[in-house]
Amino acid sequence: MFRPQITVLDCTVRDGGLINKWQFSNDFVRKIFDALSKAGVDYMEIGYKSSEKYFSRQDNGAWKFCTEDDLKRIVGDEDRKIKLSAMADIGRVDFQDIPNKKDSVLDMLRVACYAHEVDKGIDLAHHCMEKGYEVTINLMAVSKVLEKDLDEALEDLAKSHVPIIYLVDSFGAMYSEQIHFLAKKYFAALPGKQLGMHAHNNQQLAFANTIEAIIAGINYLDATLYGMGRGAGNCPIELLLNFLKNPKFDIRPVLEIIQESLIPMKKEVEWGYHIPYMITGVLNEHPRSGMKIMDSKRLPDLRQFYEDLRDGTPLE
Amino acid sequence: MFRPQITVLDCTVRDGGLINKWQFSNDFVRKIFDALSKAGVDYMEIGYKSSEKYFSRQDNGAWKFCTEDDLKRIVGDEDRKIKLSAMADIGRVDFQDIPNKKDSVLDMLRVACYAHEVDKGIDLAHHCMEKGYEVTINLMAVSKVLEKDLDEALEDLAKSHVPIIYLVDSFGAMYSEQIHFLAKKYFAALPGKQLGMHAHNNQQLAFANTIEAIIAGINYLDATLYGMGRGAGNCPIELLLNFLKNPKFDIRPVLEIIQESLIPMKKEVEWGYHIPYMITGVLNEHPRSGMKIMDSKRLPDLRQFYEDLRDGTPLE
Repeated sequence: MFRPQITVLDCTVRDGGLINKWQFSNDFVRKIFDALSKAGVDYMEIGYKSSEKYFSRQDNGAWKFCTEDDLKRIVGDEDRKIKLSAMADIGRVDFQDIPNKKDSVLDMLRVACYAHEVDKGIDLAHHCMEKGYEVTINLMAVSKVLEKDLDEALEDLAKSHVPIIYLVDSFGAMYSEQIHFLAKKYFAALPGKQLGMHAHNNQQLAFANTIEAIIAGINYLDATLYGMGRGAGNCPIELLLNFLKNPKFDIRPVLEIIQESLIPMKKEVEWGYHIPYMITGVLNEHPRSGMKIMDSKRLPDLRQFYEDLRDGTPLE
Repeated sequence: MFRPQITVLDCTVRDGGLINKWQFSNDFVRKIFDALSKAGVDYMEIGYKSSEKYFSRQDNGAWKFCTEDDLKRIVGDEDRKIKLSAMADIGRVDFQDIPNKKDSVLDMLRVACYAHEVDKGIDLAHHCMEKGYEVTINLMAVSKVLEKDLDEALEDLAKSHVPIIYLVDSFGAMYSEQIHFLAKKYFAALPGKQLGMHAHNNQQLAFANTIEAIIAGINYLDATLYGMGRGAGNCPIELLLNFLKNPKFDIRPVLEIIQESLIPMKKEVEWGYHIPYMITGVLNEHPRSGMKIMDSKRLPDLRQFYEDLRDGTPLE
């Protein structure tokens, strides 16, 4: 489908870093940056903007922090067409740790928050807008939010100045019907705003749900190389770019970087469709219990895991 | 979605056998039969009905042939709720090699054919119906068929006595829009008949497209354990059964057999999402060139493979 307004954001390093605490080499990140630039991808989300007060560099790679020094090692000072984004979590970054846009190579900051803390999210988002950035709010885990609470959060977002709001299927629990239902609800509640879609692949539906989001009129689309991302991963960008048929995209540099960097990376770092993630997805639960299993490299009795999680007595 | 008419057919052994020439142990097939029975799955497709004149038992396991002796080793003579099916390809089985239903433990025969040979398919299907079987026709590879030729094939099928016609996405090339378009076309052209859906997972859309088929009114659904099947595999039955919410299905025996038999099998036999299959899928080509790559255990230059296949000069 060719719709010129469609904007693709690659969050391989940001979401993929949730698996290995952003322990990527500069070379790996630079190659991804180059490939996405050549492929015509609109944004690269290179990591989180977090404060070093709350997280240590001993435990986390550079892309947990995304200081200007970190970023410039990758992108240099050259002109570039691809824009750079970082994600900011409520309470994990202090306002004073965010430089003014004129002093940063970042173009966009995306604020991730839950419905119950949307006021804090809007506050941080407005602060980032005042500093000169493009800004989105990504409302997480809405598959667990009661409709009344979601409607209230959307009312608050409607009153904010934030121009782009993401529909986020954090648990990979949604089907196409939910995507259409929520997209319609968001558009109705948020007049004048653009919507984005961030999907997870627990039920092998991340790409399919992104297609449904496009059909529903959503223009901002998250994806990752080879689907790399926490747990079951994300919408594979190689599938999305091919689907879009927009002449600005070239899938070939994406195939090259997947072969050179992602296929080798997948031997070291685990993501993709696995039954523990499928179980958290179908039960609409956070993937953490599935990740604990996959990290342990030893599958427990999967039927028991399913029954326990369904009945509210998860392993952990 | 709970629609009582929905019928699930597991074709793990039949489609999965395309990877390893049906070299499954009796124990493996029996365990699958037991698990699917306990899970409440409606049909198990246990293999192909082929003539030993055309294929040798040296090269192919028992499930390429599905003689009564082969079948009885697995299912015995006991009463069972799950029905048994086998697939028959045009020109690969002679009429006289198909016993009368009263002498067979098989309940259903599914005739696979291309649009250009639909007359032969109908001929074989009618023969099987006369012998007392439930019968379907699975019209393969329709993503490559010109609309005029497809309409003619559907006209022929409409005139036949065959009650169930499958929409088959052999190359994993279809998106939800194609599923809805074709389902509407098939229903309009085939009044009074039931439709089925058989999807492949080259673009991670087998489950998603099966959901869209359900929404479009299709009641016969193919799936396989852990998605096992040729190339990128099929719609994973564990995802489908969970989605259906029909009280007749129990996902737990499916989780057990996946853990016991399919996860170990996947270490020996390759299926699932891999870039060579993704490339054949997005280019709407037969997976054979992707399978050749995956069999060789050595990836060629994937960008080159993509360009060659796109430009009509595949590797083989």
